[in-house]
Amino acid sequence: MPPAAAVAADTAAPPWQLTTVAARVESRLEQLFDDEMGRWKGLDWRLAEAIEELAAVVRSGGKRLRAAFCYWGWRGQAELAGAPGAGTGGPVGAGPVGLDDGAVIDVGSAFELLQAFALIHDDIMDDSATRRGRPTVHMSQARRLSEQGWRGEPRRFGEGVAILIGDLSHAYADQLMSGANPVARRIWDDLRIELNLGQYLDLRSAASGQLDRDTARQVSMFKSALYTIVRPLQLGAALALPPQEVARLSTGPGPLAPGAPGTRPGVMELLERYGRPLGRAFQLRDDLLGVLGDEQQVGKPVGDDLREGKPTELVALAMERADPAQLRLLGRIGERALSADDVAAIVAVLVGTGAVADIEARIAGLVAESVAALDELPFGSESRNALASLADYVAARNS
Amino acid sequence: MPPAAAVAADTAAPPWQLTTVAARVESRLEQLFDDEMGRWKGLDWRLAEAIEELAAVVRSGGKRLRAAFCYWGWRGQAELAGAPGAGTGGPVGAGPVGLDDGAVIDVGSAFELLQAFALIHDDIMDDSATRRGRPTVHMSQARRLSEQGWRGEPRRFGEGVAILIGDLSHAYADQLMSGANPVARRIWDDLRIELNLGQYLDLRSAASGQLDRDTARQVSMFKSALYTIVRPLQLGAALALPPQEVARLSTGPGPLAPGAPGTRPGVMELLERYGRPLGRAFQLRDDLLGVLGDEQQVGKPVGDDLREGKPTELVALAMERADPAQLRLLGRIGERALSADDVAAIVAVLVGTGAVADIEARIAGLVAESVAALDELPFGSESRNALASLADYVAARNS
Repeated sequence: MPPAAAVAADTAAPPWQLTTVAARVESRLEQLFDDEMGRWKGLDWRLAEAIEELAAVVRSGGKRLRAAFCYWGWRGQAELAGAPGAGTGGPVGAGPVGLDDGAVIDVGSAFELLQAFALIHDDIMDDSATRRGRPTVHMSQARRLSEQGWRGEPRRFGEGVAILIGDLSHAYADQLMSGANPVARRIWDDLRIELNLGQYLDLRSAASGQLDRDTARQVSMFKSALYTIVRPLQLGAALALPPQEVARLSTGPGPLAPGAPGTRPGVMELLERYGRPLGRAFQLRDDLLGVLGDEQQVGKPVGDDLREGKPTELVALAMERADPAQLRLLGRIGERALSADDVAAIVAVLVGTGAVADIEARIAGLVAESVAALDELPFGSESRNALASLADYVAARNS
Repeated sequence: MPPAAAVAADTAAPPWQLTTVAARVESRLEQLFDDEMGRWKGLDWRLAEAIEELAAVVRSGGKRLRAAFCYWGWRGQAELAGAPGAGTGGPVGAGPVGLDDGAVIDVGSAFELLQAFALIHDDIMDDSATRRGRPTVHMSQARRLSEQGWRGEPRRFGEGVAILIGDLSHAYADQLMSGANPVARRIWDDLRIELNLGQYLDLRSAASGQLDRDTARQVSMFKSALYTIVRPLQLGAALALPPQEVARLSTGPGPLAPGAPGTRPGVMELLERYGRPLGRAFQLRDDLLGVLGDEQQVGKPVGDDLREGKPTELVALAMERADPAQLRLLGRIGERALSADDVAAIVAVLVGTGAVADIEARIAGLVAESVAALDELPFGSESRNALASLADYVAARNS
C-alpha cells in the first residue's frame, strides 16, 4: 500500500476520544432497551416489536459524534469548574477521581436517540431505501405488510410505523434527559427546534428549487454546525456548571446569549467559535461523500443527494462557475430518475468546474479556524486535545 | 323543541370548568407562537411558515380536555396540600388567593401541543383528508406543492412537512414542560411512551385484522384512558406536590407505583380509579361518534373509522353477536373503498345486533363508576364537582 493511502486511512479512523465514549453510550442504550422490553412485553408481546425495531436502528451503527462532543464539553467544563480530582486526566469511564460521568453518558445517549429519531423521519421524507447498509424502517415495514399478507397499502403502513418508531425514539431521548439541569434542558429544547426548522428549510428548498448558497448555508448551520457540534458541546458544558451558575443562567436571556461588548467571551461562546466552522466543514465533507464517497462505507447509494436535489454548497458553487452546457447538466439535479451515467456526468461537472477542489480547500481552512479557536478555551489540555482530534476526524472521515 | 332534545343538547355542552381552562391555554399558546415567530422570522422568513402551519392546527379547535384534567388535578391537590388561600374556591384564572396557576397553564398548553403532534402524525398514518372540518396538514401541503409548481411527489412532500410540523409541536410541548418538577416530568415521559406504543398496537391491529376485544381495550387503555384522562390528572396533581414529596417520589419505584397492600390508596391511585373507567367511556363515545355522529360536528367523514378498520369494542361486540349474513358485512370493515351505502349497511348491523345500545349502556355504567370513585378522593368540593362535570361531558359529548 502506498504511504499516501496509508496516511489517509489513518486520519479517517475514529480517535479514541470518540470510540471510548461510543462504547459507553452503546452499553447505556442497551440497558434502556432491556429495561423497556422487560416493562412492556409482559403487557402485550406485540409492543416489544416496536422497541426491537428502534434498537435495531440504533445498533446498526453511527459514529456517536454528538455524544462525544457532549462528553468533552462536559469534561472540559467539569475540570475547569474544579470538580474533585479535576485536571488529573485519565481514561474515559474511569474519569478523574471523583468525576462521575454517569449523567453525561445518559445525555450522550439521549443525543444518539434523537439522532435515530431524526434519521428515521428524514428517511421517510427523502424516501431513502437504505441507511447504514440496511433497509430503512419505512421500507422494511412496508415489506413486512406485504410478506404477512396484511391489509392496507404497504407504503402507508411502512411510513406509519416509521413515524411512530421515530416518535418513540424522541420520547426515550427526552427520558434520558431527565437528570439534566435547567440550563442544559434549555439548550436541549432549542436544539430540537433548530433541527426541525432546519429540516423544514431543507425540504422546502429542495422542492422549490432554491439551491442558492445562502439557503444551503442556513440549512447547514442548523443541521450540522448547531445540532451536531455546537449544541452538544454547550449542553455538555452546561451539565458541569456549578449550582449557582445554573441558578443564574436558567432565568433571563439564557445561557447562550452573548456577553456584554468588551467583556471576555465565556465558555459557551468559545465553544461556538470552535463548533461553527467545524460544523460547516462537517457538512461540506458530507456533501462530498454524498457524491464521491465509497457506497459501502457511506452506507447509502451515492447519487441519492443529487436525485433528491439536496441544496449543497458544492452544487451552488458549481452552478456559479458552470458554462451553459455544464449548467444544463446541473439543472437535472433533483430528477428522481437520474441513472448512474447521469450521476457520473453531473459529478464530472462538479469536479470540472473546480467546485470539488475548492470545497476540499475550504474544509481544510475551516478546520484550521476551528482548532485555532481552542487556544482561547480555558479547558485543560486533555479536553482540548480531544476536541482537536475530533475536528481532524470530522473533516477527514470517509463515512 | 321537545324537552328530551333540550336536555341532550345541554349535557353535550362543555362545562365552564372546561371552557375557562381552554381560554387560558389558548391564550398561552398564542403567546408561544408570537414569541417563536418573532424569534425566527428575522433569520429566514420561510421558517415562520412552519410555525404558522402549526398555529393553524392548534387554532382549528379541540376541546382542550387534557389541559382541563391537568388543571383540576393540580387544583385539587394544591388545595389539599394547603397552599395559601386553599379551599376558598373562586374562578379559574383568578384562582384562590395566592394560588398561582401559571405553571399548570403552561403544562396544560404542553398537553394541547402534544395532542396536535399526535393528531398530525395520526392523520398521515390513517391518510385522513380532513380534521376539525379543514384539510389535514399532509393534504394541504401536498396541494401546496402542486399549486406552486414545485418539484417532487406531492404526497411525499405533504407527508414530509406534516411529519416535521408534528415533530416541532412535540418539541414545543416539551419546552412548555420545562418548569415542571421531576415527578411531573416522569409522568410526562411515561405517557408519551404509552401513547406511541398504543398507537403502534392500533396500527398493527388494523393491518393484521386482529379486531378482538382484548386488543381494542388495550389500545383504548393507552390512547384514551391513560393519555387523555389519567395521566393529565396525575401530572397536574404532581405539579402541586410539596417539595419533600417531590424529593421522595422522584427516586425509587416512582410516583405511580401502587401503595403497599392494606394501606389506604394515595391520590395518584384514586385519580386512576376515576380516570380509567372514564377513559373507556370516552373511547366508547368516540367509537359511536365515528359511525353515528354528525359529520359537521365531529369534523371528519363518518365511516372513515370503518374504512380504516379501526379496532373498536363496538365492532368486536357486533361480531360476537352477528349471524352469518351480518358477519359477511362486518367482514368488509377495513376496505378502503367502502361506499356511503356500504357504510350505512354496516351501521345497520351495528345497531341491529344491539351492539350500539349495549355500548350506550356501558358508557352510562362506566361514568357512574368513575363519578363514584370521587367519593374517596380527598379533594375539595369544587374540584370534585369539576371532575364530575367533566365526566358527564366526556360521556355525552357530540363532537
